[in-house]
Amino acid sequence: MPDPALGLVEVVGTGLVGTSIALAARRAGLDVVLSDLSAEHVRTATGLGAGHARRTDDRPALVVVAVPPDHLGAAIAAALSDGDALVTDVGSIKGRPLREVAERVDAAALTRYVGSHPMAGSERSGPLAASAALFDGRPWAVTPHATSSPEAVAAVAALVELCGAVATTLSPEEHDLAVARTSHLPHLAAVLVAGRLAGAPAEHLALSGQGVRDVTRIAASDPALWQQILAANAAAVTDLLGELREQLDGLIDAVRDGRRDALGEILSAGVSGTAAIPGKHGAPVRPMRSVFVSVPDHPGELARLFGDAGEIGVNIEDVHIDHDPGRPVGLTELVVEEDRAEHLLGALESRGWTTHR
Amino acid sequence: MPDPALGLVEVVGTGLVGTSIALAARRAGLDVVLSDLSAEHVRTATGLGAGHARRTDDRPALVVVAVPPDHLGAAIAAALSDGDALVTDVGSIKGRPLREVAERVDAAALTRYVGSHPMAGSERSGPLAASAALFDGRPWAVTPHATSSPEAVAAVAALVELCGAVATTLSPEEHDLAVARTSHLPHLAAVLVAGRLAGAPAEHLALSGQGVRDVTRIAASDPALWQQILAANAAAVTDLLGELREQLDGLIDAVRDGRRDALGEILSAGVSGTAAIPGKHGAPVRPMRSVFVSVPDHPGELARLFGDAGEIGVNIEDVHIDHDPGRPVGLTELVVEEDRAEHLLGALESRGWTTHR
Repeated sequence: MPDPALGLVEVVGTGLVGTSIALAARRAGLDVVLSDLSAEHVRTATGLGAGHARRTDDRPALVVVAVPPDHLGAAIAAALSDGDALVTDVGSIKGRPLREVAERVDAAALTRYVGSHPMAGSERSGPLAASAALFDGRPWAVTPHATSSPEAVAAVAALVELCGAVATTLSPEEHDLAVARTSHLPHLAAVLVAGRLAGAPAEHLALSGQGVRDVTRIAASDPALWQQILAANAAAVTDLLGELREQLDGLIDAVRDGRRDALGEILSAGVSGTAAIPGKHGAPVRPMRSVFVSVPDHPGELARLFGDAGEIGVNIEDVHIDHDPGRPVGLTELVVEEDRAEHLLGALESRGWTTHR
Repeated sequence: MPDPALGLVEVVGTGLVGTSIALAARRAGLDVVLSDLSAEHVRTATGLGAGHARRTDDRPALVVVAVPPDHLGAAIAAALSDGDALVTDVGSIKGRPLREVAERVDAAALTRYVGSHPMAGSERSGPLAASAALFDGRPWAVTPHATSSPEAVAAVAALVELCGAVATTLSPEEHDLAVARTSHLPHLAAVLVAGRLAGAPAEHLALSGQGVRDVTRIAASDPALWQQILAANAAAVTDLLGELREQLDGLIDAVRDGRRDALGEILSAGVSGTAAIPGKHGAPVRPMRSVFVSVPDHPGELARLFGDAGEIGVNIEDVHIDHDPGRPVGLTELVVEEDRAEHLLGALESRGWTTHR
């Protein structure tokens, strides 16, 4: 069902993110027109069902600027000057583009702009990698400046919602500090680790497991794009790299000198850090409930319980087992989403399990 | 079908890896007995179908020692001294346990030992996280020493095969150098990045995407286990951390001073590094073949092609599009596994696509 508030959407820049937004907008029933310096990208995006090439007489209501950081300010300013559309962008940094736009357009035009940034993507690039589902459940930063109009903010909020994302509002400055920590620092760590792999003996690299793949995955991203992102956020990134170096110095000392307590503290700080990352997709953590099942101590009974839970279709988030040495039956605690607990209990009982509420 | 060469298998240490090996051995039809300092872990593993608690009169043919690094040498030596079983271990480091074993057993017993190390696991631990499929397609290092008997090597090779893994043979010393690079360095990078997250403002952490989750995932691993692993490989790890620090210094300079060429080189070295990681699961890269399809330049035609390929069930590994501005039809190159190419071509043709061989 088309969103009446949004009207015609133009996407400027049909790379991964731009094309994905266009596909999501088409999925929501909106008309979408596309523009890009590369006619090939527009053709590919059109072939994927993302919209039509923009014609000169098209009058978009909302323009989404999805070009690389170096050209972002100029492209946003051009979109603002080209009519009276509301304009947003999806750039990885928010401070510098805003300054560049403010230098190029008058105060009235500037009210029609609200910056934003979907926290979605991968090491892949280009329209062929795009998907309407790219933003499902993902955070999307919305960064209005002091004079952004409520109408512009509402249009961006509607875009975020139709893309299935979760909006978080913060200032452009706070955004840039945040992504230095949650995106740019991880990216650079991945790059440095990956840099130690090229040129290593093949028989060493043969021992690559899932860990190194996970850590280095994002290091395969387009270097040209990342040069631009990091240059546009140099101060915040430099600060965090300095913190990283301090910690690395402490780690080297601890490992070299066999100081296991110091090493243990660093490792534990890592565990705490992973716990600080919000639930799934930056959404609030879902309420859980524990259900208790008596499991006879026969070989394979636990496997049977998990198999039944799988068939019942309730996801088990965590498991704890209380073995009582004095009893031949163990009490197993299954942690599930609160609104699935009763269903699981009833279904397990009907399969003969003894449960405890 | 039981592997006649292997006989009764004992797993010492029913954590994630030990229990998973036991489950794989049971899947292959072998009898498995389990031991662990923790009776609870044995009960849980038994409940999962991984085998039975070891009785004193059991006579295993192969003992798999899966205990943490600090106790590894002593546990291997105990297994060698307890009968005439062949013995392997799955420890993350191979040099130090071998030295500790050699100090404890005589030359004859030492021939019955071959170290090994499956490159599988995750940040999770304990028997409840175990799976018979943990090793499917994964590399498994086999590290015989100078006096390992051919019989012992063959037994370990059979174990690797029934676990569905891919064996790579190297010396204990080369193994430790390799994993310092492919496992320990990535782990520590993940830990350092994760350490910068705890204590950050919640509104910053809300902007966490897939990248930071991938980079820091392994930092959630058990600190007690990793203290032991790193202590047992301190020299190789210290060397690599020193290399990392050098590169980090260069990176800080490049970002701070806006030296984009230098930054670009570091980023490009990261891309090369990710390309150095072997195909999937450390197995040789599968041979590919390109098939060519004419795709009319109408909106959505490309999407229709990918949809058809999906229904046909052939995985598209890569895509290239050659748009000829002079023609209304684009030539699309689909890169697929060589032995799936004919099937894809025939199925696309029967759906009306014009293909080129």
